Parts: sequence; C-alpha cells; structure tokens
Amino acid sequence: MGSVNPPIKDGWQAVVARKLAQQKDAIQAFASSNTHTEEPLAGVTNISDVTELVRKYAEKSFTCEQVIKTYISTFTEIFFCDAIADAIQLDQYMAKEGKPKGPLHGVPITLKDQFNVAGYDTTLGYTGRAFKPATDDAVLVKMLRSLGAVIIAKTNLPQSILWVETENPLWGLTTNPMSSRYTPGGSTGGEAALLFMQGSMLGWGTDIGGSIRSPSHMMGLYGLKPSSSRLPYTGVPVSTEGQEHVPSSIGPLARSLPTIVETMKALISLEPWALDCRCVPIPWREPIYKSVQEQKLTIGLLLDDGVVRPHPPIIRAIQDAASALEKLGHEIVPWTDDLHAECIEVMDMFYTADGGEDIRRDVEAGGEPFIPHVEKLVNRGSPISVYEYWQLNKRKKNLQQAYLNKWNGTKSPTTQRTVDVIIMPTMPHASVPHQTSRWVGYTKVWNFLDYTALTIPAGRVEMKDCDARWDHAARNDIDAWNAKVWADNKQEMAGLGLPVSVQIVGRNLEEEKVLAVGSILDRVCQETR
Amino acid sequence: MGSVNPPIKDGWQAVVARKLAQQKDAIQAFASSNTHTEEPLAGVTNISDVTELVRKYAEKSFTCEQVIKTYISTFTEIFFCDAIADAIQLDQYMAKEGKPKGPLHGVPITLKDQFNVAGYDTTLGYTGRAFKPATDDAVLVKMLRSLGAVIIAKTNLPQSILWVETENPLWGLTTNPMSSRYTPGGSTGGEAALLFMQGSMLGWGTDIGGSIRSPSHMMGLYGLKPSSSRLPYTGVPVSTEGQEHVPSSIGPLARSLPTIVETMKALISLEPWALDCRCVPIPWREPIYKSVQEQKLTIGLLLDDGVVRPHPPIIRAIQDAASALEKLGHEIVPWTDDLHAECIEVMDMFYTADGGEDIRRDVEAGGEPFIPHVEKLVNRGSPISVYEYWQLNKRKKNLQQAYLNKWNGTKSPTTQRTVDVIIMPTMPHASVPHQTSRWVGYTKVWNFLDYTALTIPAGRVEMKDCDARWDHAARNDIDAWNAKVWADNKQEMAGLGLPVSVQIVGRNLEEEKVLAVGSILDRVCQETR
Repeated sequence: MGSVNPPIKDGWQAVVARKLAQQKDAIQAFASSNTHTEEPLAGVTNISDVTELVRKYAEKSFTCEQVIKTYISTFTEIFFCDAIADAIQLDQYMAKEGKPKGPLHGVPITLKDQFNVAGYDTTLGYTGRAFKPATDDAVLVKMLRSLGAVIIAKTNLPQSILWVETENPLWGLTTNPMSSRYTPGGSTGGEAALLFMQGSMLGWGTDIGGSIRSPSHMMGLYGLKPSSSRLPYTGVPVSTEGQEHVPSSIGPLARSLPTIVETMKALISLEPWALDCRCVPIPWREPIYKSVQEQKLTIGLLLDDGVVRPHPPIIRAIQDAASALEKLGHEIVPWTDDLHAECIEVMDMFYTADGGEDIRRDVEAGGEPFIPHVEKLVNRGSPISVYEYWQLNKRKKNLQQAYLNKWNGTKSPTTQRTVDVIIMPTMPHASVPHQTSRWVGYTKVWNFLDYTALTIPAGRVEMKDCDARWDHAARNDIDAWNAKVWADNKQEMAGLGLPVSVQIVGRNLEEEKVLAVGSILDRVCQETR
Repeated sequence: MGSVNPPIKDGWQAVVARKLAQQKDAIQAFASSNTHTEEPLAGVTNISDVTELVRKYAEKSFTCEQVIKTYISTFTEIFFCDAIADAIQLDQYMAKEGKPKGPLHGVPITLKDQFNVAGYDTTLGYTGRAFKPATDDAVLVKMLRSLGAVIIAKTNLPQSILWVETENPLWGLTTNPMSSRYTPGGSTGGEAALLFMQGSMLGWGTDIGGSIRSPSHMMGLYGLKPSSSRLPYTGVPVSTEGQEHVPSSIGPLARSLPTIVETMKALISLEPWALDCRCVPIPWREPIYKSVQEQKLTIGLLLDDGVVRPHPPIIRAIQDAASALEKLGHEIVPWTDDLHAECIEVMDMFYTADGGEDIRRDVEAGGEPFIPHVEKLVNRGSPISVYEYWQLNKRKKNLQQAYLNKWNGTKSPTTQRTVDVIIMPTMPHASVPHQTSRWVGYTKVWNFLDYTALTIPAGRVEMKDCDARWDHAARNDIDAWNAKVWADNKQEMAGLGLPVSVQIVGRNLEEEKVLAVGSILDRVCQETR
C-alpha cells in the first residue's frame, strides 16, 4: 500500500518500467491477500443506477465485498486492497447500524488520474510526476468516501490533458473497447472505456473543452460538465494550472442518468462551499429539478456550428430528439451559431498564453517524448505579456456578456418565452480512429462561457445513415477532414454501432434544469431505442 | 444634455478646462431650465432610510420633484436636468398608478465616476477618457432605474482608482467636509463626502482593496463590499481591467443600514444573473437574514492584524462592540492574524503584474502628471510572464483554501460551533491628513479572499482616547508612521469627532448573514451612542 519513492534514474523509460511494475505488484498483492471466499456475482455490473445498488445492499441481496471484488475482477489498477478493506468496513457498518452509510454506500467508483488520493501518485500521465504520492485526498474524494463510495482505481488520460483522445508515454494508449482501432475519446478516456465495460459504476473526470462529454458521447454514456464553481476542484492537479480564465470543471460519468442526478444531489447536500474555497453556496434546488419536468419548455436547436458539419447519424439523432420533444408539447426554436467562432478564437489564445511553458516543463521534467498533438500545441506561439493577457480577459468578458444578451434575445415567436436550454451535437462525429480527432468546437464553447452541459446517449450509427445524402462543399480544412472520416469509415462505424449523443446546454450554474431536461429526453430516447 | 466631443488639443490641461466648463454649463442649463416653482424642502435630506422616503411619497407628504431639487441644491454635478425630468415622470406615475414604481421610487442616488450612464463620460479621473461618452447604461444603472431610483450625479475618485484617498488632475482633490486638511478616504471618496453632507441618499462605489469600506469608515457611513459575483459589474470600467484575480466588487454606501439592506434585496430580486454574465444565481435569502438575527452567534474578534496596530479609539470601538454582543448572549472567540501577511504579499503582486502598463497607458493617453502615490505604484516592478502569473494564481488559490480551512478550524471552545462572522477594524486610524494614508491591510485581505465585508459606524474619536496608554514598540515603518499620525493629530481628531467603525466579515457570498449581524450590531451601537 502507498507508493515507494526511489530516486529517478535512467530517464523516463525507467520511470515507466517502475510504475508499471508497481501496478503489477499492487495487483499481485491484492491477489495473494484475497483469501476471502466470495465469488464474483454474475450480472451485478449490469446495474447502472446507484440507488438500485444501495437498495440491494439494504435488502441483503449481496455484500459490498462481493460487489467490489466483482468489479475489480474486470480490470487492472491499484487500489484493490484498500477497496476491499473499505467494502468490508461498509458491510460491518450495515450489519451494525442496519442502514447504508450514505446514498453511495458500497458504490464502486473510479477516478481520472488527476484526483489526489492520499498515498498514491497523481501522474496526469507525466513520468515526472510519478513516485510523488499525494499527501491528502482531494475534497471530492473525501466527500465521496463520506457518502459511502468505494474507490477502486484511477484511470488513464492524455499527456497535457488538453486532447480529446487518451495516450501518454507513461501508461500508453487507451483504446475503444468496441474496436481497438478507435479512440474512446478523451481526456477522460480511461473512465469512459472502463464504464462502458461495466468496470465501474461512477467515474469522475475533468472538462476544459469537452473532456467529460466527448468520451461519454463516444462510449454511449451520460456525462455532466457542471459550471466550474458547483463542485470542488481542490486537490485535483491539472495542466496549465493557474490558468483560471477558461475554467476546468470536474464532473461525473455513468451508464445511468439517475446515477448522475443522485450523485449530484448527494454531493451538493454536503455543502461543498464549506470545504472548497471556489464553490458557490447554492444548495441542490429540487424544486427546479421537479418543476422543469412538469413544464412546457422552449428549447433551442443547433444542428451545425457553421464550422464542421456533423455526420448524418449525429444530425439524425438530434433531429429525432427535437421531434420527440415537440410531440411532448415542448417548443423547438432555432439556435444560431452567432458568436461561437469568436468565442473559440479568443479561447484558443488562453491555453497557450504562456507559450506552452507549463506543459513543456512537465514533459521535460520526466524526459519522455511529446505525443504529436501536444508537440503542436506547445509550439503554437510565443508567450504574450500579462498586459495582453488582461486585454484577452476583457475580450472574453465582453463575449460572455454578448452571449448572455444573445440568450435573452432568443425567444419563442409564439409565446415570447426565452429559451430554457439548447440541444445540439456533442461532436461532429462518433468515435474515430486514433489520432484523427480535430474539432471540439461543439463542447469547448460552453467551457469558455462556463455554462452547464450534459451529454446523453441518443442512438447509434446505423447502416441507413450510410445512404444519407451528405455532399456539402467543405468549408475549411477541418470540415474537409471530417467529411473524409465519414467517407472512409462509415460502413465500419455503422457495423460497430458506434454510439451518438445529444448535448443539453443551460446557462451558468443551471445543473438542476439541465438534468431535468436530460431526464425528459432520456425517457424519450429509451422508449425509441 | 449628453456630451460634446471636440478634438483634444493643447494637452491635458485643456481637457480639464473643457470638462470643468462642461460641468458649469450643465449646472447653468439646469438653473435656467428650472422654471418650476417648488421650493427646497427643509429637513428632507435628514431622511436616511429609503423605505421611509418612499412611504412619504405614497402618503403625498411631498413629490419626487421637490426632493430631487432639494438634493441637487446641495452640490455641483451634471445630471440635474435628467434627474428633474425623471422625478416628474415618477410623480406622474404615482398620480396615475397610485403606487410607487418600485422600492427605490424617487430615491436620489449618486455614482462613483466608473459607472456608465449613456450619453455621459466615464472618466475614472483620467483626462484621456474625457469627452468619450458611454453608449449604454451599466447593468446596475438600468436595474436601479427600473426600481424607481433617480440618478443625480457622478462623483470623484483617485487617479488609477487604486488609492485610499481621492485626487486626480482632472477633477482635483476631494476633501473631508469635517476638515479640509483631512481626506474623506478613497477610492469612493466623492460618494462618501457627498453622503456625509446629505447630498445623496444612496451612493455606489467599487472596492478592490477597501474602496467602499475605507471612505465609509472615515465619513461615518455604512458601506457593503459584497462578494464580486453578487452584483453586476458589467458597464463599469475599471483600471487594470482584465486583471480578474483580485476581483473588484461594486457595492452601496448610505447613512442607514436598512437602506443598504432594502437596496440589496430589491436588486437581487431582479435576478442580476439573468442580466450580467458574472453574477451567480443566488436569490435574496430572507430566511438567512431573519434567522441569523434570532440566533446566538459565535463571533471572531480581531483587534490587530500584527502589522499596523490601530489607534486607541479604533480598538476601543471594536472592544465595545464585542462586549455589547456578549451581553446579548453571543460568544466572542479570538481570531488570529494567521495568513493575513501571506495573502497581502501575494495580492500586491497582482496589481502590478503588468509592470504598471495599464495605468501608465491611461495616464499617458491624457498627458496629465501622475499623483505621487500612483507614480510609486506603476514603477514598483517589472512585468512578470504569463507562466509566472499562473504560478501566482496557484499560490492565491492555495491561500484561499488555507484560509477556508482556518475558518473551519476556528471553533468555540464551549459549543464547538464554527465562527459565523468576524468583527475587526476597517482601518488602523480614522480619517487622516491628505497624502498620508499607507495601510489598507484590514480591508484588502477580504478582496483577496472575495469574502463579504460590511463597515458600520461605531462611534467617534473622543478626548478620552488621547489619554489612553498606547506606547508599543514600532514593528515596521508603516506601524511607526501610524503611531506618529496619532501622536501628531490626536487632539485635532478628537476635537473634530472623526468617525470610527466596525468591519463585519463573512465568507464568500454571505451577504445576508453579514447584513443580519450588521443589523444586530447597529442596534447596539445606536443605543450606546
């Protein structure tokens, strides 16, 4: 248990070798200590709702120890001994107190390798950060434990984190379980692949440009990016830390929307603002969550951001969702792409305002090579001055205000109501072959605005999509690339049945509203599946 | 009405001359158009509570036109014609509808010269910004108008805004109405002097280091610095704009605490988050405001920040307040100065992280001379890099988290309750002679943390203070300077009866709680006056 901390010698390859050996040791330590007799439970990983799992514990259908061992058996990582010990303690708690410890009692959860867990490394995928164990749990980790959750592993992410696929020289490449030629997305790609394989019930990621939503979209999961001040980021190191102007959010991924809702409710009920200096004191607003589900809503519809036209199955899924919502009596109004290009232009200047120094330092501290995407990123431009940085902030603020004015100005032509939420694609394509992702404009604009955004599964690429007319003239290089991705891979994508999603967007700190609309739409999508 | 916009010639002195001529013209235009016959009302400016004023309008004790004219007669500024027109419209509204337009119906208000009012300049005290009228009202100004308020003037502030006194080469020096040798404080010094003279009922300032609280303290007023995301800053230009890391807040100043409370309640009820992209969606929490006033509280007491020891009347006032609160059954626990020096050290690096470029550009655009304080500030150091800036943000975040941990760790030894609010000095001295202010550590630390802070009047410098034993050894230059200010001026300060205050501090976005404790303490202070 805990990490050893030997001096680093023989370069980054030696660190990789030692880190992988440590991983193997942890698995073996678990295997040899695993003297209890419970057998893995068939079917338990099919349960996607945390409330259903906790109810089964209370009904004594099975123990935490059985469930955690079943989950652990499906993948390879390093908290197994701790997890079993935690599970046994929870079972003892239930036996003694006659009730679950909390709403996440015995729920197996996993974390992107950014969340601090005391005694373990937080590598961010950098070899230079290996063998430097965290001294304290992240605030979120403490809160999850107090709710009864059991942390079983941390998962992979890309070098620099700023990439929508999942690869680094320390832990290697994470592939899509549906086809190893395809990416599971990123940067929270390890979580998405694992959740898809039923190796965890609740995953935690971070999102500064789509890093929760894009892998959720590619793996057919639910993923929520709250506004950045809703959940506690303290104890979660990140690349370009201190760059606070395009805020990164932490958020959950799961195979069930109720799991996301119940988790958000439980966490916010613990008053994260009392524990984390950046959280706003907004309690869980159940009346909003409830009442939104009983109203006739006004919903903005954006099919195309004007830069990269989505593939036919994406557009079809969003249109189907819009039609279904209309049938329920909600009003769909067009949402324009006004201001999106400007937001993205300003946003892109923030990531590398330091001339790539932050990421370069981290990579050079370990000595491993850059992955190609990151190499391009850190060499994108010279650093700007602090004065110029402040001018950039002014442009950002003006665009944020302009977007709010746009929102207030977009009304139903019949009722004059302003739009409640927007529905739109998460990405212009489903999962793609490794190293070909190029456009996250559908997700990142909401990080720039710090709005709430939820991705929910809305079908799959189907054979009928391959015949859809889709012969628009390419608008730019990325649009041309995206058209080629479809032409080259559409038969395979349909054959694999790659998932597609709908993204639901609300304004700043409108998590309850967005989750409520998600619940409406999820019922529709499940009925039509 | 509106501003003329001639080309600037003959340097900054010519701009000053033309701006002052414009001011004079505005007054004369008002004087010659002032053909209505209402006489100024004796005693009306003695009313400090907005609810009392609006009730008298409803009871037809007098008209808006009479009141606004009475206010205008007490000072010299430029919106008089507009204000009278607004007042007449409000009177017509009342006559037609039989009720006030809103909770600030006919309330005469003034604004620090940072708030945009369409058609008028927002100078920030820079000649280079004169004759460039704003094209739109600030969000706050629109909200205040919709509540029925009448804007009668804008008021003076110091060059750069980053100074606790009030002087610039455009509008000149603002003096303390109690003695022209003394400062009214700053940077919201024009508002404070005017409110003291009963020339306005409600003033609006900004506060990035104490700029609402310090002048309120010096002039015996109530001044609230909310957390920065509670009220709308959009349409309020500021120096070092884009420097978002030590956030500036807007907030009200008044001669009555109920005026502050009612105004906050009315503004927040308009949902500023729907109008301003930076406001958080937190409604006015009346249950908190009410319940805090019915509880036995745990209150931290800080008398001395360990850097500059406050003068005897300041310490006496805070001790008296603490004793009075104890008599009411509240518990007083010591609050330490831990982390204050570190916060201030990091904070000071932010203001001039651009090497003073922002302020230098503004001053050089007009060509006027620097005032001595600002000249020192802009020459304090070289610009840092964006990478270094991000490291500074990390230090800031860690200190903010450490301070929250300190707060959570400070408990009542008897009840184990955590502290509700802190009471402490606003400044280590009352008003001081011009150009001698040197220490705002008692206020600025709360900007760094973005906590809520309220200054309320708590007595005056008295003759008995001059005899108080106060012979501590100087800790540093500023402490020695502060001791000398007392030794040199104490008889005069007591003779003038300069006001002193108590500062009440709560955590991020705890405006209702802080105002509730203010109400408790204000009743005590008024009883003992």
